[in-house]
Amino acid sequence: MTKRELSDSPVNVGCLGGGQLGRMMALEAPRLGIQMKFLDPGGNKCPAAAIVPGENIIKGSLKDEASIRELAKGVDVLTVEIEHVGVETLLKLEAEGVNVQPSGRVLSIIRDKLLQKDHFLSKKIPLPPYQKTSSVDGIKDAARNLGLPLMLKSRTGGYDGQGNAVLNSIADEDIGEALKKLGCINGSSESSLDLYAEGWINFESEVAVMVVRSANDVDTDSYPAVNAIQQDSICRVVIAPARHVSSDIRSKCEEIARSAIASLGNGASGVFGVELFVTKDGDVLLNEVAPRPHNTGHYTQDACAVSQFENHLRGVCSLPLGSTKMVVEAAAMVNILGAPSGTVEDTLRSSNAAMDMDTAVVHWYGKHGCRAGRKMGHINLTGASYGEMDDNLSLLLDIEGIPRSLLPGGSFEKSPLVGVIMGSQSDLPSMNAAIDILKKFDIPYEVDIVSAHRTPDKLVSYSREAVDRGLRVIIAGAGGAAHLPGMVASMTPLPVVGVPVKTSTLSGVDSLYSIVQMPRGIPVATVAIGNATNAGLLAVRMLCTSRPELRQKMIGYQAELTEMVNGMSSKLVDLGSDAFLDQMESKNTAVNV
Amino acid sequence: MTKRELSDSPVNVGCLGGGQLGRMMALEAPRLGIQMKFLDPGGNKCPAAAIVPGENIIKGSLKDEASIRELAKGVDVLTVEIEHVGVETLLKLEAEGVNVQPSGRVLSIIRDKLLQKDHFLSKKIPLPPYQKTSSVDGIKDAARNLGLPLMLKSRTGGYDGQGNAVLNSIADEDIGEALKKLGCINGSSESSLDLYAEGWINFESEVAVMVVRSANDVDTDSYPAVNAIQQDSICRVVIAPARHVSSDIRSKCEEIARSAIASLGNGASGVFGVELFVTKDGDVLLNEVAPRPHNTGHYTQDACAVSQFENHLRGVCSLPLGSTKMVVEAAAMVNILGAPSGTVEDTLRSSNAAMDMDTAVVHWYGKHGCRAGRKMGHINLTGASYGEMDDNLSLLLDIEGIPRSLLPGGSFEKSPLVGVIMGSQSDLPSMNAAIDILKKFDIPYEVDIVSAHRTPDKLVSYSREAVDRGLRVIIAGAGGAAHLPGMVASMTPLPVVGVPVKTSTLSGVDSLYSIVQMPRGIPVATVAIGNATNAGLLAVRMLCTSRPELRQKMIGYQAELTEMVNGMSSKLVDLGSDAFLDQMESKNTAVNV
Repeated sequence: MTKRELSDSPVNVGCLGGGQLGRMMALEAPRLGIQMKFLDPGGNKCPAAAIVPGENIIKGSLKDEASIRELAKGVDVLTVEIEHVGVETLLKLEAEGVNVQPSGRVLSIIRDKLLQKDHFLSKKIPLPPYQKTSSVDGIKDAARNLGLPLMLKSRTGGYDGQGNAVLNSIADEDIGEALKKLGCINGSSESSLDLYAEGWINFESEVAVMVVRSANDVDTDSYPAVNAIQQDSICRVVIAPARHVSSDIRSKCEEIARSAIASLGNGASGVFGVELFVTKDGDVLLNEVAPRPHNTGHYTQDACAVSQFENHLRGVCSLPLGSTKMVVEAAAMVNILGAPSGTVEDTLRSSNAAMDMDTAVVHWYGKHGCRAGRKMGHINLTGASYGEMDDNLSLLLDIEGIPRSLLPGGSFEKSPLVGVIMGSQSDLPSMNAAIDILKKFDIPYEVDIVSAHRTPDKLVSYSREAVDRGLRVIIAGAGGAAHLPGMVASMTPLPVVGVPVKTSTLSGVDSLYSIVQMPRGIPVATVAIGNATNAGLLAVRMLCTSRPELRQKMIGYQAELTEMVNGMSSKLVDLGSDAFLDQMESKNTAVNV
Repeated sequence: MTKRELSDSPVNVGCLGGGQLGRMMALEAPRLGIQMKFLDPGGNKCPAAAIVPGENIIKGSLKDEASIRELAKGVDVLTVEIEHVGVETLLKLEAEGVNVQPSGRVLSIIRDKLLQKDHFLSKKIPLPPYQKTSSVDGIKDAARNLGLPLMLKSRTGGYDGQGNAVLNSIADEDIGEALKKLGCINGSSESSLDLYAEGWINFESEVAVMVVRSANDVDTDSYPAVNAIQQDSICRVVIAPARHVSSDIRSKCEEIARSAIASLGNGASGVFGVELFVTKDGDVLLNEVAPRPHNTGHYTQDACAVSQFENHLRGVCSLPLGSTKMVVEAAAMVNILGAPSGTVEDTLRSSNAAMDMDTAVVHWYGKHGCRAGRKMGHINLTGASYGEMDDNLSLLLDIEGIPRSLLPGGSFEKSPLVGVIMGSQSDLPSMNAAIDILKKFDIPYEVDIVSAHRTPDKLVSYSREAVDRGLRVIIAGAGGAAHLPGMVASMTPLPVVGVPVKTSTLSGVDSLYSIVQMPRGIPVATVAIGNATNAGLLAVRMLCTSRPELRQKMIGYQAELTEMVNGMSSKLVDLGSDAFLDQMESKNTAVNV
């Protein structure tokens, strides 16, 4: 299919499923002149029904041929918001000339997780070890091959953790229990269980990447890798870009995700949610793929110029793919699950809190019927940095009852924007003035001792990891042969402010020259000898390059300085120089006493 | 009315008018659990009809009592997307207990531009001089009082430049012509013309501010002041925040706009578009107000966490007002008008171009019937700075045929992010290395000579205006008593990088000390003597604090340095030191010849 342009007649897109994903597509479609139509068992009670004229909602099962045929009438493209649909009907319709995106072939591979694995294995996409298990004996065999604990998974129909069971031993009763959880009849040892077993992955992080691919079979792009934070196999929080995952590993995740989707070939169109494991050794393994917009991509609505929903429509309609870049530096999504009480009032608590937050956007799905644990909506946060989202994110986690232990790194960490480091604890009295400034301007900071010569390994790791930890400026103070600022600057792309600490031998001229006379290629922003105040101010000014409100604060600070000096000036003029000098001297004496 | 929270049952909002403004409200409403219903003469052909179930569209005149009553049935709040509606019916409905927001009283003041002026005059809001003119003699009298040219305006019904006429003389035929344009019968001298005359304002800029106010009558907030760029009285382009308008004047515009709307008192709820004139002397005068989302506020959809449409709904529903801050530093909106040919194909050219741009968002209104000059949609651009939108904006202006002369400043100016200045032309050979780096990293820059001692006035104006012109970093080079960097830093909140230029007398140590030894409060980021390369790199690193892609580029640059030195290292090891030295020497000789 060749690349289209926007055209006069609206493109009619039919979607199997009118849940929240379909609804959010329908909220983006009109801007592009796309008119949507939905098939959903809930009919005009489904979330998408509020967004389209009534005649564009068909009530019926997503597997019912007649209903799907009804949906297909008059549409230019047929797409899905869920993979558990009547793929056989879609294949028939394609044979009759209907444009199904992603194609029936692609859907049939993905909806059967075992076929999915087999496909990706054949395409050399890295996967956890797995094995088909169609009997109890097969399960025992898998446990011998893959070890315990063992994941047992249903080949089809799994969703939000349903269809998964963990096996900790191969005792018959444990296997029976697992099969019961998977919905297999009484755990009997019949030979045709539709399962597969997966080796247990002791992953460090779960990461997700939204891949978008055009029906023209040429363009494939991906959004940034994000943390996919799950509880009981249900997505609770997403943080973008992924924290506690280095940018190298994030790139690796994105590359593998793009390769995986591109390997599906012609008909792999629209958006795909790709879930991955990152191991402690930095290996990246593909977990599973969903052929549609995905919960882990909701952040794109408010963090990117083109959301996953718009890009899904662009992809399936062969329109040019939209940018997958974030327009902000950091974003988070928190799912709103039906409160334990099951009441809407309790469930709305996080949304009501978000209504009062800057840069929070509430997305309520309008579902009929609130139940404990049901996905009722989500909240997107955006920020100029992780640190600037901290307070809001923390509040939402509390309201939603999301344990901090689920977060990347195992706890809620405040994210400093500025790192203040010094070669020795003896530099602290001098460096403290920088911290005072950061406090005054309300900039999240961290402080540490890093000695170039006595802790060279720490110097390297601190410098190399600074960007990925969210730091944006580093202030480094050192005296004498003051190598710290320059060495840090050589191992980070961030701006480094150097403070030459005053020395007793050469009054800090040694420190100044050591810091300022850097070779071509690696700059250090050097301030006056012993002037950590100015280092703090310089860090703030650097952050001012993208923060209008901070610039206003800095202008206010400068006005304060002017006022202070003007005050002194009035006093001097009023008192005359003699009296003024007397007063200064008596004050100095008082201080010295 | 007290402040509400989001609640279980959707709030039903009825809106008089289902054009693009209503449509864009309807696209935001579902996220907040709000269900909209529209009255529009176009019925199910109106732009909003594509977004709501069919039963929520009523076909009828916005002035017809029966239709308005039909709309009011079962809604919690009645609002408007246009002020030319049956206000008398709204007043009746309010008396019967219907919640109309903004109230009939407020609408009746605003829709009659003369009453609007009288109201704001009584509230001491600064206005252009004006006078009621109900006869030809009255017009002549106004011309004597207010001078020529004179603006004649219809009191009611004006929209997109209709209802305005410019009078250049008081010759009877000119008056007749003007009255004809205003739709007054044959220009006869009847005594009851529904007009007023306004003194001609030789404004420097037209600025608009979107104000949002809650029906709880307490909270009033405003979005940033923007350039409202009109052609033939139709909005063509908006730039946010306003360019060529200092931040002080922008604040003044925002303050006056908020005061004006707050002065309307109880019932002034939802979003108000406030258009203002800024004169050459920096006076700000209110032009006119629209009691609804406004074309000049469309940029908020993609530049702010909460758009004007969401905030309108929040305001009229007494929900907490959402943030009015931009989440990006710069934004622009370009209206898509029906192409001169009147064909959709031609009209879609700018949208198709925007589909290929990063950070452009297309908003097509889905109007039935494309006509030359009709508002068919708009495109929003966002950027980390004005400069980073330049190329896309320039392309869209060309496609839409918008003359550059309409832009603030009278032409399309590229917006530099970094200013490179030096005390003297003799510094250029040394400072050029900074420019090379900015070119390498593709950073828009400007270069100029600013001498602290020989052009002190230019020093002040350059420093003071830098932020508002869009600069984000200033690189200043100077030698000897090198005051330039420090003096610039004292008059801007931006980071200033100082380059100590090497001198013949003291080898640049004089320059270094002059630049680096700044007093507490005003920092200069000082680099090594004569090392303008590092100044360029430092400026880039400062911009890296908010630009992930630029950080990747900087990491790449550092890797290149490593590779270059590794190359030398291999060569040295391969050749041995003697041969290496020989080669170096012969190269140096070659260079010196």
